[in-house]
Amino acid sequence: MAINYPAGTHRAQEIQNTIRTGKTTKKALTFGKRGMGLEEEINLANDYYLANHLAVIHKKPTPITIVKVDYPARSAAKITEAYFKQASTTDYNGVYQGRYLDFDAKETKNKTSFPLKNFHEHQIVHLASILSQHGVGFVIIKFTSLDETYLYPAQYLIAQWQKLKGKQSISYHEIVRDSYVVPNSLNPSLDYLKAVDQYFEHLN
Amino acid sequence: MAINYPAGTHRAQEIQNTIRTGKTTKKALTFGKRGMGLEEEINLANDYYLANHLAVIHKKPTPITIVKVDYPARSAAKITEAYFKQASTTDYNGVYQGRYLDFDAKETKNKTSFPLKNFHEHQIVHLASILSQHGVGFVIIKFTSLDETYLYPAQYLIAQWQKLKGKQSISYHEIVRDSYVVPNSLNPSLDYLKAVDQYFEHLN
Repeated sequence: MAINYPAGTHRAQEIQNTIRTGKTTKKALTFGKRGMGLEEEINLANDYYLANHLAVIHKKPTPITIVKVDYPARSAAKITEAYFKQASTTDYNGVYQGRYLDFDAKETKNKTSFPLKNFHEHQIVHLASILSQHGVGFVIIKFTSLDETYLYPAQYLIAQWQKLKGKQSISYHEIVRDSYVVPNSLNPSLDYLKAVDQYFEHLN
Repeated sequence: MAINYPAGTHRAQEIQNTIRTGKTTKKALTFGKRGMGLEEEINLANDYYLANHLAVIHKKPTPITIVKVDYPARSAAKITEAYFKQASTTDYNGVYQGRYLDFDAKETKNKTSFPLKNFHEHQIVHLASILSQHGVGFVIIKFTSLDETYLYPAQYLIAQWQKLKGKQSISYHEIVRDSYVVPNSLNPSLDYLKAVDQYFEHLN
């Protein structure tokens, strides 16, 4: 079964993400890793992992509430009214070496802290549920101004959320202390499974 | 963290599914299990499993390609042109007792066989990838005319797909032989984790 996924899958998703998050299209026009958003980097890493049989991790489609659909004769159904819906889970999940991974990706321009307002409470609840089922939950946090990326295990995020009641920020110092570094590399540019490996070593 | 998921999440998804699959709205108007589609039954089972801390399994949102979005002043962004997109994975995944589950749900009115045209090749490829990462992949197949539901492990589906080259049908006899029965129950009406348990016993 040497069949690859259809091309362009992630491209469409990127367009959706651009629309959804209102990220600058300027970013999309620059070349190379520096110009890429964190989500794009993770999507490319996931493509790489899938093609090289290292892991099967996908970004979930953006949840939409569909209100109106037209069915033009001889044409594909056309959605003419729909709205973006708040996700009830994290954005990414999949399987790596038999283990269930579940995570979200967040970037901040801050240099000294990470604001908790980047999360919704149901995402924290979801990650807590994942941990209770012995899944591996975490957040990939990128400090864009520092060009540093961390795998921050869900149990620390949940503890900080409870302590700070979902407000304020986690200090950069605390994140670095409790995280695993995602190393810079060439292909994929964000080889986050390296940090997952480090985390697994700690878990075992 | 005794916070539950917001109500109505699955309701919206059901509406989407109805739109997408063109299933009769008549079904939605009848009451009780008999009137429910397989997807609704699985969604209700997943709600039950989540609320009772048994498993965290979600249906993925329907993938959409967004073409045009309006941003009315002081209102939510409104999608005014979008199209349904073929999914590149299965519909359901999640974690149960530390194991990664990945599956699709299919129903047929046939009594003697299950047509392979119910699957797309990329779904078969996806399930093969899941197995190679030691995930648990399967299909929940419901023979609606017989009111019988089976957990059919992915390795049998993949083997049949390769043998039959994606055409023709798998006989009812073969499915029953290689499957685990999903028992009828009251709450949830489709307690498919019971069949997963049986399958795990066989795997161990």
